[in-house]
Amino acid sequence: MKYNCNPVKGMRDLLPDDLKLRNYVTSQILGVYEQYGFSQIETPCVEKIAFLSSGEGGDNEKMLFNILKRGEKLNLDKAQNRSDLIDLALRFDLTVPLCRFYANNKSKLPNVFKSIQIGNVWRAERPQKGRFRQFTQCDIDIIGDSSVVTEIEIILATSKALQSISFEGFTVKINDRRILESLVSYCGFESKYFTEIFIVLDKFDKIGIEGIEQELKDKELSSVPTDKLLSILNSLPEKADIEQVAELIPNIPQNIINEIKTVINIIQRQAQGKFSIQFDLSLVRGMGYYTGQIFEMQAKDYGVSIAGGGRYNKMIGKFLALKEEIPACGFSIGFERVIDLLKQQEFTVSESSQKIALLYDAMGAKIQPIFEEADRLREDGYLVSIEIMNVKKMKRQLTELKQRGFSYFAVYSEQDDLTVKPIN
Amino acid sequence: MKYNCNPVKGMRDLLPDDLKLRNYVTSQILGVYEQYGFSQIETPCVEKIAFLSSGEGGDNEKMLFNILKRGEKLNLDKAQNRSDLIDLALRFDLTVPLCRFYANNKSKLPNVFKSIQIGNVWRAERPQKGRFRQFTQCDIDIIGDSSVVTEIEIILATSKALQSISFEGFTVKINDRRILESLVSYCGFESKYFTEIFIVLDKFDKIGIEGIEQELKDKELSSVPTDKLLSILNSLPEKADIEQVAELIPNIPQNIINEIKTVINIIQRQAQGKFSIQFDLSLVRGMGYYTGQIFEMQAKDYGVSIAGGGRYNKMIGKFLALKEEIPACGFSIGFERVIDLLKQQEFTVSESSQKIALLYDAMGAKIQPIFEEADRLREDGYLVSIEIMNVKKMKRQLTELKQRGFSYFAVYSEQDDLTVKPIN
Repeated sequence: MKYNCNPVKGMRDLLPDDLKLRNYVTSQILGVYEQYGFSQIETPCVEKIAFLSSGEGGDNEKMLFNILKRGEKLNLDKAQNRSDLIDLALRFDLTVPLCRFYANNKSKLPNVFKSIQIGNVWRAERPQKGRFRQFTQCDIDIIGDSSVVTEIEIILATSKALQSISFEGFTVKINDRRILESLVSYCGFESKYFTEIFIVLDKFDKIGIEGIEQELKDKELSSVPTDKLLSILNSLPEKADIEQVAELIPNIPQNIINEIKTVINIIQRQAQGKFSIQFDLSLVRGMGYYTGQIFEMQAKDYGVSIAGGGRYNKMIGKFLALKEEIPACGFSIGFERVIDLLKQQEFTVSESSQKIALLYDAMGAKIQPIFEEADRLREDGYLVSIEIMNVKKMKRQLTELKQRGFSYFAVYSEQDDLTVKPIN
Repeated sequence: MKYNCNPVKGMRDLLPDDLKLRNYVTSQILGVYEQYGFSQIETPCVEKIAFLSSGEGGDNEKMLFNILKRGEKLNLDKAQNRSDLIDLALRFDLTVPLCRFYANNKSKLPNVFKSIQIGNVWRAERPQKGRFRQFTQCDIDIIGDSSVVTEIEIILATSKALQSISFEGFTVKINDRRILESLVSYCGFESKYFTEIFIVLDKFDKIGIEGIEQELKDKELSSVPTDKLLSILNSLPEKADIEQVAELIPNIPQNIINEIKTVINIIQRQAQGKFSIQFDLSLVRGMGYYTGQIFEMQAKDYGVSIAGGGRYNKMIGKFLALKEEIPACGFSIGFERVIDLLKQQEFTVSESSQKIALLYDAMGAKIQPIFEEADRLREDGYLVSIEIMNVKKMKRQLTELKQRGFSYFAVYSEQDDLTVKPIN
């Protein structure tokens, strides 16, 4: 039987060059985060359905790869519907599993826990260019500290991580869910409409004020608050800063304004001109779980987001059914986006050592000396690959070796003298 | 709703110390394999059911985590049986996906392809001590070279990788499936019984010659070949070498004997006494796909296998429905076993940089200076974590920091002078 050897739809085979770039990016980012005091952890790729459909995952919960029950648990005859057939699913993000992890391991973790997670997640999305059904996420989170020091540290660490892989001049956009709430509540909307309105505001970048106006009117919300909201949005200068926003929305609590100011001031100073930070009232971030500041990083020249995150103080407490909140704040680098941009820039990872190919003739020669020579050269720090010689197409083989990054070769056959020669 | 926050049965949460050890082991092994000219690749964790139930995976195919069809593909009413409900599954090893990968990407790969794979696999086994339903495998494979140079290089690279994580004095056991075939065919068994008999011989270590005798007799095979087999096994000296085995089994082709001798001689010489290699007629290796030499590494003092592999020349051709064979040979390090042994030895990964905690008082002090100081110290190569000060339990906090590997701290509050002090 001949098989179709493509990978599963929407998933990818990663070739040596892909891995080289991805490993480099991972190790750079990991190195920076560790230097900021974060520690890597890992959760299983598979979680119970109950967790992954708790409501915290928004639309992602609709895109689960569900796993069939096994053994006696699976009763096909009695199964009434989908949910009778499945008990597990592949995780769709790293945040929901982190909350479970924290709840499960709290006693073994420091009071304030600074985690790094780098791992695959799965979403059964309609495959499209640049979107995959298995992809890597790269998150840091600080759990247990409600102070704004957390936000600053998380933004600084992520900025540094991006700089370590040659991103610069990017813009950190910052807003606060509580400011958005002040805005719509000041306009007179009831809180049950908040999420709906946020989703519209989130499109500001794409559809502009006219688009917002249209979408709000289509929703047939009460006209007085809608008009008030539109009037405020219209009177906001472009790139309004927090002062200008605070003037137009008088009910924003002063401590929230101060927190935003503190973060912006400190980040601006620490950035030393290498990147910038900017208040942006239209920043919403999709997920429902955010409770405070939210942020996003936009790559220079590309206008695309390369990282996003924010504070989510209610999620872990909810999983634990606790009355009090467990403060948490996270930032996620768009790993696949970053890889994509680096590829567009033809970014190359330099070889860590010089590469030598030792070619042996399958038909002749003793092979013992090859292994001795290879060991010697490896001890001297060379990368040495022993490869079979293509006697008839030697020239072509050398060209291929050069393409693969080899600088030297030697031939081990009856006639040859075993000298290492450069590949021209 | 309160959730049970344990990970899925048989799977694990990995804590910072776990990741530290696993990352260290991974990077050491990867470094060695790269120096031997291998390149890392990656396939999706999910494969089509057709692949994973091709028959090459042996018993592992019975332990699949199957994934429910999605959207319109899933028709519950019409589904007659399990297979109508599922289309994908989690991979159970890295060898079957490698064959698909090679078939799919052949044109982009060198003629002889030397791959490294490090990744998770899933098996719905009954959970037991030391066995997990999600675990890491770490494989190298050489595809496209039928010469014995491949076996030697793969054994040497794996030995070096194990040495790089402090294993020494281990034993490489080697045998050849073709020698086992010669043995049973010489005794007069029909080839349809070969696999069955191999499974019995595989238990030699555990049940000894008496056990083998019992199991063979229970099988009710024809008595003449059974008696002949038992007589040969009985007359073999303990730890019989290839010469002794060849004398008793005269039909082993000379080239197979020579190949084994070549491998043993060269490995012995290259090992320089740091590990040993030994022919072992009772080595069988479970998987049905092996076609030539097979090997296993046994840890000193533990008597457990820490790596295993062999040649499988028929598998890739089968997937591609080719008439010719595509030679392949692989070695897999038992990653979880290795981690387990290192933990038993209380192996510790040394910190790459000195760790400083900058503690801030949530109630007072300006926070700007902390970030400046942190940046300065990080530029000097220190790992710096900014952490909230536990004002009431300062002593306890310092003890915890010390346990977490911190050597220095500084306090940032109104009163303090920001000096970095050692933690005693």
